[in-house]
Amino acid sequence: MSITVVGSVAYDSIETPVGRRERCLGGAATYFSLAASFFTDVRVIAVVGEDFGAEQEAVFAAHNIDTLGIEHAAGKSFFWEGSYLENLNEAKTHSTELNVFASFEPKIPDAYRDSEFLFLANIDPVLQRRVRDAMPQVKLVAGDTMNYWIKDHRPALLDVLKGLDVLLINDTEARMLAGNNNLVQAARAVMALGPRFLVVKHGEYGATLFHEPTPRGKSEGGTFRAPALPLEQVIDPTGAGDSFAGGFFGYLASQPEPTPAVWRRAMFYGSVMGSFACERFGTERLQQLSRPEIDTRFHVFRELTHLD
Amino acid sequence: MSITVVGSVAYDSIETPVGRRERCLGGAATYFSLAASFFTDVRVIAVVGEDFGAEQEAVFAAHNIDTLGIEHAAGKSFFWEGSYLENLNEAKTHSTELNVFASFEPKIPDAYRDSEFLFLANIDPVLQRRVRDAMPQVKLVAGDTMNYWIKDHRPALLDVLKGLDVLLINDTEARMLAGNNNLVQAARAVMALGPRFLVVKHGEYGATLFHEPTPRGKSEGGTFRAPALPLEQVIDPTGAGDSFAGGFFGYLASQPEPTPAVWRRAMFYGSVMGSFACERFGTERLQQLSRPEIDTRFHVFRELTHLD
Repeated sequence: MSITVVGSVAYDSIETPVGRRERCLGGAATYFSLAASFFTDVRVIAVVGEDFGAEQEAVFAAHNIDTLGIEHAAGKSFFWEGSYLENLNEAKTHSTELNVFASFEPKIPDAYRDSEFLFLANIDPVLQRRVRDAMPQVKLVAGDTMNYWIKDHRPALLDVLKGLDVLLINDTEARMLAGNNNLVQAARAVMALGPRFLVVKHGEYGATLFHEPTPRGKSEGGTFRAPALPLEQVIDPTGAGDSFAGGFFGYLASQPEPTPAVWRRAMFYGSVMGSFACERFGTERLQQLSRPEIDTRFHVFRELTHLD
Repeated sequence: MSITVVGSVAYDSIETPVGRRERCLGGAATYFSLAASFFTDVRVIAVVGEDFGAEQEAVFAAHNIDTLGIEHAAGKSFFWEGSYLENLNEAKTHSTELNVFASFEPKIPDAYRDSEFLFLANIDPVLQRRVRDAMPQVKLVAGDTMNYWIKDHRPALLDVLKGLDVLLINDTEARMLAGNNNLVQAARAVMALGPRFLVVKHGEYGATLFHEPTPRGKSEGGTFRAPALPLEQVIDPTGAGDSFAGGFFGYLASQPEPTPAVWRRAMFYGSVMGSFACERFGTERLQQLSRPEIDTRFHVFRELTHLD
């Protein structure tokens, strides 16, 4: 089954303790779709500028990602510059140029309207809501957000949350959104806002899936924790969270039924894709990856945390 | 097989967001031995003052913990006062009174000399070394330490590390000891100092066991990660790390052979005992605990992190 994703396709200049890359292909929708493409068909809704050409297009094409929904506008693509010199867990933003993204009006190609899965990457919740409303046929909607929207655009974000099945955020965001420092209590408060599944990402410590029993789902409710792989060297953590989301949602979309076992394996595949993303700058590692490598690492994760 | 533990037996005054307790029974050796007592015989080497009486003695006796090695000295017991009002993951120390602990000279009862397991809780590395040297017969030695000894007593600590099979410390301590922010690299550097097994505790995110293949051990080397239980309410995190160590080492000591599967289950039992410790103030929860409750929670942990 296919996933439609709406989000940013961008250029990133990144500095980490290991080195620096100028204007590499980035953006949440890029990482998400590359990661998800190993599991299922992916369609992208985004906007790029005149600096987005055949070379970037080829990255998507090589992974059979449908780019019909990537609008080409006059001007430059979204650009982000950041560094991780002091702390690999948190980017320091040096510059954000919205460029063509400032007036982004998501346009959904008719060919996307039979997508059963929708991922709302981290963009203005007003746009997330618009895309969600325009695709009433989807069976499962997941989304991401960030501290900026939680703090300063709460009403619009709350509107989006009502229409989400799955929210993926990190610890700090979960606590901020709930106004509660206890993760279990925060998770319950967030799920009361709409999403029946909440994935809280803990960076190098893995991620936790919280889910409440509801008449809508087949899950029995509860909690599941996937590890992260202790990495010898983190080259660049940019996009690790979006790659997690891509592996997680891509695997979910590839399965006939979202059974509890499928949700668990999806958490592991998310963690697997996040670990790959950190191994090279930008999307370099995801671009080179093969499905057998993914499944081999899945078994490494299993071995890392299983008793027998 | 029996464990001898050397460390502090103390009184703690603790404040957390939930409330406050004055002078409850505490100390690393107390938490460790209560947790380990559910798995194997435990013998304690410590010093207490005249304020340690029949009521405290009874707590140890109720768990069949051998207190022959607890010396009774003139003066007051070690006293610690701390709070966790802003951050449940890190204590703020308000007062430390060493009292009789200031001149602690560990004395090892002859009856302890057939112990096959030795745990050196977090005390002056000079004392840890002395106890370790005085018990050459032990088969497995584990130890703990803290930032204070790492920073200001490094030569003495390095001497202790040479004689350890297992070191249990937290993330910050591992990175500080190795002078390396990458956990995998830090772990390798710490193991090069002596311990062939390193347990790094991540607080609410669980713990990682690193082990290198050596001719001494049967392990094949590698990494294992045990989860922590997301807790609805943390009443008091004091002693969680020592309780982890007690569950971990107690389980190891209870098994005929330290196979790789035993090390893995030991990590889970450590995490189980750490989770119980947080559920009440001080040692209250460990005092009330039963072995069936422990095994039930072990299965909760399994369910929390296992794919099938």
